[in-house]
Parts: sequence; structure tokens; C-alpha cells
Amino acid sequence: MSHILVSVVAGALGLIGVGILVKGILKASPGDELMQELSRTIQKGARTFLYREYRAVAVVAVIVVIFLSIAPLFFGHKVEVNWQTAIAFVIGMFCSALAGWIGMSVATRANSRTTQAAKSGLKPALNISFSAGAVTGLSVVCVAFLGLVVVYLLFKGRPAIVNGYAMGASLMALFARAGGGIYTKGADMGADLVGKVEAGIPEDDPRNPAVIADNVGDNVGDVAGLGADLLESYVESIIATLAIASSLAFISLTYLPFYLAAWGIISSLIGVIWVKLARVKDPQSALNSGTYLAAILMIVGSFFIVRRAGIAYQDYSVLGPFWAIIAGVISGLVIAEVSVYYSSSKYRPVRDLANSAQSGPAVVVVNGLALGMLSTVVPIIVIAVATLIGYHFSGMYGVATAAMGMLSILGITLAVDSYGPVADNAGGIAEMAHLPSEVREVTDKLDAVGNTTAAIGKGFAIGSAAFAALGLITAYLATINAISPRPISLSLTDPMLVAGLLIGGMVPYLYGSLLATGVGKIAFKVVEEVRRQFREIPGIMEGKGKADPSKCVDIAARGALRSMMFPGILAIVIPIGIGFSLGPVALGGFLVGALVVGLPLGIQTANSGAAMDNAKKYIEEGNLGGKGSEAHKASVVGDTVGDPLKDTVGPSINILIKLMSVISLVLAPIIMALH
Amino acid sequence: MSHILVSVVAGALGLIGVGILVKGILKASPGDELMQELSRTIQKGARTFLYREYRAVAVVAVIVVIFLSIAPLFFGHKVEVNWQTAIAFVIGMFCSALAGWIGMSVATRANSRTTQAAKSGLKPALNISFSAGAVTGLSVVCVAFLGLVVVYLLFKGRPAIVNGYAMGASLMALFARAGGGIYTKGADMGADLVGKVEAGIPEDDPRNPAVIADNVGDNVGDVAGLGADLLESYVESIIATLAIASSLAFISLTYLPFYLAAWGIISSLIGVIWVKLARVKDPQSALNSGTYLAAILMIVGSFFIVRRAGIAYQDYSVLGPFWAIIAGVISGLVIAEVSVYYSSSKYRPVRDLANSAQSGPAVVVVNGLALGMLSTVVPIIVIAVATLIGYHFSGMYGVATAAMGMLSILGITLAVDSYGPVADNAGGIAEMAHLPSEVREVTDKLDAVGNTTAAIGKGFAIGSAAFAALGLITAYLATINAISPRPISLSLTDPMLVAGLLIGGMVPYLYGSLLATGVGKIAFKVVEEVRRQFREIPGIMEGKGKADPSKCVDIAARGALRSMMFPGILAIVIPIGIGFSLGPVALGGFLVGALVVGLPLGIQTANSGAAMDNAKKYIEEGNLGGKGSEAHKASVVGDTVGDPLKDTVGPSINILIKLMSVISLVLAPIIMALH
Repeated sequence: MSHILVSVVAGALGLIGVGILVKGILKASPGDELMQELSRTIQKGARTFLYREYRAVAVVAVIVVIFLSIAPLFFGHKVEVNWQTAIAFVIGMFCSALAGWIGMSVATRANSRTTQAAKSGLKPALNISFSAGAVTGLSVVCVAFLGLVVVYLLFKGRPAIVNGYAMGASLMALFARAGGGIYTKGADMGADLVGKVEAGIPEDDPRNPAVIADNVGDNVGDVAGLGADLLESYVESIIATLAIASSLAFISLTYLPFYLAAWGIISSLIGVIWVKLARVKDPQSALNSGTYLAAILMIVGSFFIVRRAGIAYQDYSVLGPFWAIIAGVISGLVIAEVSVYYSSSKYRPVRDLANSAQSGPAVVVVNGLALGMLSTVVPIIVIAVATLIGYHFSGMYGVATAAMGMLSILGITLAVDSYGPVADNAGGIAEMAHLPSEVREVTDKLDAVGNTTAAIGKGFAIGSAAFAALGLITAYLATINAISPRPISLSLTDPMLVAGLLIGGMVPYLYGSLLATGVGKIAFKVVEEVRRQFREIPGIMEGKGKADPSKCVDIAARGALRSMMFPGILAIVIPIGIGFSLGPVALGGFLVGALVVGLPLGIQTANSGAAMDNAKKYIEEGNLGGKGSEAHKASVVGDTVGDPLKDTVGPSINILIKLMSVISLVLAPIIMALH
Repeated sequence: MSHILVSVVAGALGLIGVGILVKGILKASPGDELMQELSRTIQKGARTFLYREYRAVAVVAVIVVIFLSIAPLFFGHKVEVNWQTAIAFVIGMFCSALAGWIGMSVATRANSRTTQAAKSGLKPALNISFSAGAVTGLSVVCVAFLGLVVVYLLFKGRPAIVNGYAMGASLMALFARAGGGIYTKGADMGADLVGKVEAGIPEDDPRNPAVIADNVGDNVGDVAGLGADLLESYVESIIATLAIASSLAFISLTYLPFYLAAWGIISSLIGVIWVKLARVKDPQSALNSGTYLAAILMIVGSFFIVRRAGIAYQDYSVLGPFWAIIAGVISGLVIAEVSVYYSSSKYRPVRDLANSAQSGPAVVVVNGLALGMLSTVVPIIVIAVATLIGYHFSGMYGVATAAMGMLSILGITLAVDSYGPVADNAGGIAEMAHLPSEVREVTDKLDAVGNTTAAIGKGFAIGSAAFAALGLITAYLATINAISPRPISLSLTDPMLVAGLLIGGMVPYLYGSLLATGVGKIAFKVVEEVRRQFREIPGIMEGKGKADPSKCVDIAARGALRSMMFPGILAIVIPIGIGFSLGPVALGGFLVGALVVGLPLGIQTANSGAAMDNAKKYIEEGNLGGKGSEAHKASVVGDTVGDPLKDTVGPSINILIKLMSVISLVLAPIIMALH
């Protein structure tokens, strides 16, 4: 039981860290009355959306719970999926919701405080905003890990039940990410289209009633959504390792993930403390050094953990999992760096893209898409190589362990990623509260770093999702083979497998299409509402009449929930349908097809969007004619095209491939019983 | 030998048909002096480009020939790949080049003759332009088939050698399609950007020196390029059937493809005659009825052919291949219809897209991309189902036979597709020669139908490419299993296979990125050249000075050849590298990965582009404010984004997945010898 004890202690330490950080944030001044009011409005909008989102998810969850609970009635009691799986599922959903709620609550309180701190300089402002990010990062890993430990203890580690926990986290993530993604970009596109393009007023102008919705979107999409996404990957990488260990019937292999995850939390915590204590000259290097410190600690620590565990299974050496961990940690860092290279205006790709904006909007969009396509090359090779390394040193277990390695220091990586939206919001509040330009300068500096970390976050989210999905698919294949009385051939010469691959490859496209269309519809409604307010509220453009943001918030929330319902249900129903109708082999092919297609599509959309966004910012900094030039107008079009790609389509595809894989893993016993 | 005799007779009959059609075209009046001159200029531009293209290909071909010829020195004489493979390869290249040359020569002669005939009405104009299309269609299938028969006879049907023929056709297609695609869209984008957008002069205005290059591009891209693309698919579907039959060591199965292909040529010929004799009210229905007639003839005929062959191999019934043929023919028609639904302004998707153009260029681009993504659903399901049907009734052989079924009536489907660019050119000449508006009305009517048939052609090209690639991959897997002394596991649980799948899935993105970037660069150079001419040639805008189109033709040709060299070599080198370094299993995964990703990407780019094109045309017809409205400007941006997607990226990805598969099939013996 020492693995459980160690896990609980690490989780508790992390939560204590969260408590201290929260206390520090709340102690800071929230700024003047107007700033507080803005912060409260954003808070209220985000809270309302999350409530509604939870309500919508609850409906789907109830159906899933009923299905899981009555499964034994239909498929016989030999199938291990039952009401206990349902309980694990509910706990998974709850933990994800809880972590999202904590992160979002703190982030929406930290925004005006960051603005206020920016009055005293860069260091205090970074301190508050990074603390808020660290709260998200640490509470995600600690809540997720402790929840998993509880489920593991309750159900004695039986995989058919524990897997339900991951499925719960996954379903929550789907709605948080897809819903949040549609919300944030519907509001953002709407605000931009009518504000910047039609009315010619700047971004974050308080006269634009859609601006608050845009700021709410940053929190529900980039804090709660991203958190839920990575929480899912984190949980799934551990679950996949456990499931494979179970299928190998090697009990000592199931202890290792607990020790590694526990040490990952401690490493992240040390990284966070390092960033807080760093003497800041440049926020970027403070954040980077914390991440690298945690990565080094993780690698060194895992060497001792793995050696002490001393498990030599099959033909693999004792240190096998250690090499897998290294492959995972390093590939995570490489993928993040590649994202930065292709999406930061410090490097050639984005500068070339900005240059091409001089030839008009069509050229910038084509080049932006092409840039994203090119950016898939290195990350995919890295993932393929890490897979080969993991397998070489430790078999299927090694593949899952490599995924765990990549996600082990999520506490700090997510802290860095979630700091961005807080800084972004702080800038918005500074603008809306008409604060002096020095304040805005500080928040802009934070925001610029936030853009880079956001790119890192997206790259990392996709890479880790692919790896988590790979772990889950491996676990699925191991599970069906363990259940089946005779070995199952999963050969490429089997037409069922090929049909599954082809159909699986189509689903990310179907899904992306539905989400992108959803964003467009909401943006259209937001535009109409803003136009109505501009028309009907007297004196609004002169700053005398007051815009009514609540209407826009409501439109975005309603629309997002409506648009995500169908794709959400689809993501659950399709893999089940394939498994039930075409069988476990086709389903295996289907999952791999979705992964093989979803991975480049996810990377492409993320990096195309980020690059077009930063090309626009590069021009706005005064290059190539600056604001108002033809190049700038073209780059605004590029940015607007890229927004739903990078913040809605891409991230949701991450979740899609994970959710479909985890559902298949959970239902594997049922599908095997049917065929 | 009766299968050879039948094949030669059918091929000869087809070529006689071609001769009669050519005579008919050349008999028609080529129009007045100016029209003739325009036609000659286009002809010369196209000829020059093809010459240069052949020269560039020759360099690559020499390397391939040397490699194949000396293979036995390095890999031992047990490896069957040798100088004979090289000869088959050269014949394959030659046949593809010959068919492309015939099609292009006739198309560039038919353009002004169509314009001239349009003076007398719709029927004569349709007659000439369809004849030109039929020349391409029939000469592609007859030359390809007869060449294959020659190679088959010469080398006694030994697959390791005959496969070289397909590889030759494939390499030629790569350069024709990718080079032609870059050429045509570089010129088109350049012409549009500087003409319509900057100078505000209409499309096809003779003052714009890039217009001739644009018209040349239609011929080299959409006639020679498309022809080479489908020629390749056609050859490969037959080769794959033969290779699988060989690996099954069932000699009578190798006769069947010859009979079926021969009957396909006859069916197509009858379809062509039907269209020529049809009383035209509506060109679209004339073309459709010809295609459907050929499809019915094919299905009925293949029933008798298959029954008479009476081959019952393994557990499959005698009629097995017949059901596979039906699945192939019908899925080809369904995929074509789906392309029309998603890209014609007669249906809701394009109308909705045009509506959304009112919200600006970014919205139309996002919705256009989303529409293309959605359009992947039905075609991919259809292909998956056809694969399952083919396999169910006749095993691996059935999968390849289904592909043959889809391509069997290529003679007529390609005739319909290639008629489009002739009509398009005819319209351009009418505009440039200042002919009265009645003539332009007739050519516009033809062109509108041509747009629909172009969409059909693209959908068909992608569907058939996927099917041909599937056939080739199946043949590859069958071949490596036949060579290997012990059965090769191609299981999803093998990390090599997974790594191959992931890397294979990345290649279409890398490839698409390189080509799209190439288009952008050429467009940029064309724009600069046109600007220079506008600046330096006195009186050009008033129609007094004469624009110099040859410069633009030269820039596009040079640029296209340069841009295609690197991706072309990449497409050859990557699969060889994977096979040599990671082995035959990883290569199998790699090919499947490229197919699974390339298929939806190809469909999406084709349909997104076509839909945005037709949304623009729909607005130009006077809807939603018509020309000059904000919606129109937005739709022009959408069209320009879509152009390189649909005409360069999408089609080239077809070829990429086929070329990589056929190279792997040819080199399978070498790769097996190395591992």
C-alpha cells in the first residue's frame, strides 16, 4: 500500500500549495470600483456558462450511467462493466468539473488583481497571473490524481471499473472543450467582425457589448476547457498504463505509475516555486526555467523510482520504463518548441507569413494553412520515434509509460499555459477601465508572453492527446486480446480493419465541420445583437449610452451548448455503433484511423491559427505598414479564419480521439461479448 | 491468348474512334484570324510547358531506370526487379506522356473551333468541345491499355516487371498533375490578384498579360494533368488485380481483368456515340445519359464475362467478381453525385455558403472549409462499404476488382471531365476576341456545365485514386506475404506498423504544404510581371499597347517545374527510405496512413475549393447583390483561397498516395531481400 500512501501525500502537498497560492491572490487588491465590476461581470458570465454546461452534461451523463448500470442485464454477468463502472464514471466527471471550477473561479478573480498589480510593475503582475495559472495546473493534477486513487482503492484496481473514471473525465472534457471552444470563438469572431471591421472601434472597447462575452470566453475556453482537456490526457495516460499492466497480469507493474505520478506532482510543485521566486527580467525565461527544472527533476527522480521498483518483465530490462519516461518528457518539450517556432513572430515562418499579407487576404490564408501543414512534420516524427523507443524498451507498457512521461509534469506546463488567459483578461480590463498606457504596456508584455505560452499549450495538448490516445488504443487492443479465448488478428489484410481505418479517418473531419459551422452561427447571432444595440441604444457610440453585455453572453452560451450537443452525442454514439455493428477489429481500426487523421489535423489547425494570429500582431506592432495598412486588413482576415481553427476545431479533435478511445476501452468487454 | 486478342481489338476500336473524332474537330472552322492567333498562342504555351515538363521528368526517370537496372547487382539475382522492370517503367511513362500529348494537342485546337461553332448555337459548340473531351478520354484508356498489353506480352506477365509499367505511368502523372496544378493556379491566382482585384479589369481581359498563361494552365492542368492522373488510376487498378491474382497463383484470375477492361472500352465508346447523337436540349443531361448508359452496359456485360469465366477460387462463388464490379461502378457514380451536391449552386450547401459571404471573407472561408470537411462523410463510407463488399464476395482480389469496376468506364467519365476546360478556353477566346454577347452566352452555358463536370471529375479522381491505392496496397501486402518464407504479421499491435501509420499520415500534409507554397510564390512573380507591364508598356490599359503574355507563360512554367522538383523527389524517396530503414511492415503502415489521411484531405480540398468557386459564380449571376457587392468581394477571396486547394493540393495528393503505393509494390522484392 505504500504506493497509495505516497500518492495521497503528494496530492495533498499539491493541494496545500494551491491553498497558499489562492490565499496570496485574494490578498491582493482587486483595483478600483470599475475594474471590480468588470471582473465581476466576467466572473458571473463564466459561472453562468459553467452551470449551464454542467446541466447539459448531466443529461448525457444520466443516459451513460443508466446504460453502464444495466449492461449486465443485457450482456450477462461475465461482462465486468456494471453500476460500479458508472460510479467511477461519475467520480471522473465530478473531479474534472471540480478542477475546472477551481481554476476558473480563481482565474476570474485574478484578472482585475493582475491589472491592479500591473500599476506597480511587471514582477507583481506576473506573480498574480502566474499564481492563478499555477492554481489551475496544480489543482487539475492533484484533484485528478486523488480522484483516481479513491476509485482505485474503492474498486480494488479492477480495470473494467477504474477505466470508467477516465471515461467520466473524458466526457466532461468534451463538453468543456468543445462547448467552451465554440463559446469563446463565437463571441470573439462576433466581437471582431462587428467591432473592428464594421464599426471601426478597437479591440476590448467597452462600447462593444460583445467584448465581455469575448473575455468570458477566454476563461471558459482557455482555462476551464484547456484544463479539462489536459486533465483527461493526464488521467488517461495513467489509466492506460494500469490497464496494460493488468492485461499483462504483472501486479508490480501497476504500482509504478502511482510513484511516477506522485513524483511528477512534486516536481511540478518545485517548478512552480522556482518561477515564483525567480528574479524576473523576462517573464518568458522565468516560465521556461521552471518548466525545464521540473522536467529534469522528473527524469532524475524516475531513474531512482524505476530502479528501485526493479521490475524485469518478459525480456525487457529493469530500466525499460525509465527510457520510456525520458522519451515522453523530451518529446513533450520538443513538440512545444516546434509550436513556438511555427507560431511566434520571432521566427521566420510567421514573418514570411506577415510579408505575404501584402498580397492580400487570400494569399495570407493559403500560406497560413500551408504553414500549419508543414508544422505537422516534426511533432509526428517525434511521436512515432517516442512510440518506437517506448516499445523497444518496455513493450506496450512502455508506450503507455512514455505517454505518462510526457504528462507527468503537467502541473507546471498547465500552469504556464493557463497564465495566458489571465494576462489577456487583465489587458482587457485595463483597456475597458481606461487605465493609463503604462499599465496597458505591462499587461501587453504579459499578454505577448501569454500568446507564446498558449501556442506551447496547444502543441503540448495535441501531442499529449495523441500519446494518451495511443496508450488507450494499445490498452484497448491488449484488453480485447486478453478477453478473447483465441488471439485476435488485427492485420492490415483484414478488410474490417481497413474499413474501420477509413471511416475513423473521416470522423475528425465530420466533427471539425460541425464545430466550425457552430462557431459561424453564433458569431452571426452576436453580430446581429451588437448591431441592434448600436442602433437602438441612444448615445452608445459616444460612450453616453451603456452597452448591455449580458445579452451577448447569453447568446454565446445558449448557442455553444446547442451546437455542442449533436457532435457530443455523435462522439459517443459512433464508436459504440462501429463496435456493435462491425465488431472489435473494425473498432480498433476506427480508433487508429481517427488518431492518424486527427493528429495532423489538430496540429495544423492549431499552428495555422496561431501563426495567422501572430502575423497580425506582428503587423500591428508597426511592421509592414502597421495598423490600417492593406497588409493589416489582410492579416485580420487571416486571424479571423484561424481563430475557430485553432481554438475550436483543433482542441476539440484532441478530445474526440481520446473520448472515442476511452469509450472503446470501457466497452471492450461488452463488444467482445457481442461478437 | 483470346484475352489478348479481345484486348487488342477493343483498344484498336477505341483508337479508330479517336481518329474519327479528331478528323471531325479539325474539319470545323477555327474562326477568324484573331481567334486563331489566340488559339495558337495557347497551343504554343501548352506545348512549351509539356516539352519542359518531359525534360524535367526525364532526369528523374534516368535515375530510376539506372536504379532498377542495377538492382540485381546489390540485392542479388533472386530479386526479380531488373532492367526489364526499367523497360516496363519507360513504356509506362511514354504511354502516359503520349496520351497527355494527344489530349492536349486536340483540346488546344478545339478551343477556337468551339468558339466559332458557338456562333451557330449550343449543339454544334457542345459537339466540338465534347469531341475534344472524348479524344482525351478514349486515347487515355486505349493507349494505357494497349501499352499494358504490350508489356504483359513482352514479359510474360511476370508481376515484378509488369508493375514497373504502373510505376512509369505514376511518375509521369505526378509531374503532370503537380506541375500542371502549380502552373495553372499560379497563373490563375496571379492573373486574378492583379487583374480583378488591383486593376479592376474583368476576367479573361486581353489587356492582362497573365490571361493567356491562365488559359494555358487550363490545358496543362485540367486536360493533360487530369488525364495522366486518371490514366494512372486506371492502369493501377488493372495491375493491382493482376498482381493479386499472381500472388494467389490462380492463373485464370489473371485473364479476367483483360476481358473486363476491354468491355469497359467498348461501353465507353457506345456512351460517347450516344452523347454525340443525343438531341441536345440540356448539355448536362446529354452528358449524364451517356455516362449512365456506359455504366449499365458495363454492369450487364461484366455479368456475362464473369459467368463465362466461371472461376471459383477458394471459398468464393463464381459470380464474386461481378458483385465487386457492381460495387465499384456504383460507388464511382455516388461519389461523383456527392461532389456535385456539395459544389453546385443548385443545392443548399453552396447557397448557404454564398449567403454567409455577406458576413465577410473570413466567414466564407471558414464555412467553405467546413463544407469541404462535411463532404468527406458519404464518399468515405461508400468506399469503405465497397471495400467490404469486394472482399466479402471475392477476397483481396475482389477489392482490386471493385477498383477496376469504378475505373472501367473511364473512357466516358474522363471525356465528360475533359470537355470542361475546352469550354472554358472557348469562353476565354470569345472574350478576348471581343465576340458578340450571344456567342459568349453559349460558351457561358457550356462553361457552367463544365464547372459541374469538373467537380464530378475531381470527386471521381479522388475516389478512384483511393480505390486504386487500396488495390495497390493490398497487392503490396499480398506480395510481401508471398515472398516471405513465414507469414508476416501486419498487426496493429506492432509498433513499427503504428509508427508507419503516423508518419504516413503526415506526408500528405507535408506535400500539400510544399505545393500550396509553390503556387503562392509563382502567383507573386506573375503579379510582379503584370505590374511591370502595366507600368512600362505605354497605352496598355487603353488597349493601344500590346501585353506580352509570353513572359507570364515563361514565369509560370519555370516556377512550376522548379516547385515540383523537390516534392516530386520526396514522393519517391520517402517510401523507399521508410522501407529500407524501418522495413516492410512499417512501409505497409506508412502507405495505409497516407491513404487514410490523404483521402479526406483530398476530398475536402476539392469540394471546399469548388464550393467557394461556385458560391462566387452564384453571386456573380446577380444573387445577394451581384458583382461589386461586399458579398461578392468576400466570395472572391474565398475563391482565391479555394483555387490552389482544389486544383493543386487535392489532385496532387491523389497522385502522391498512388505513386508511393506503386513504388512500394515494385520495390517490395528488394525491401524483402533487405529485411
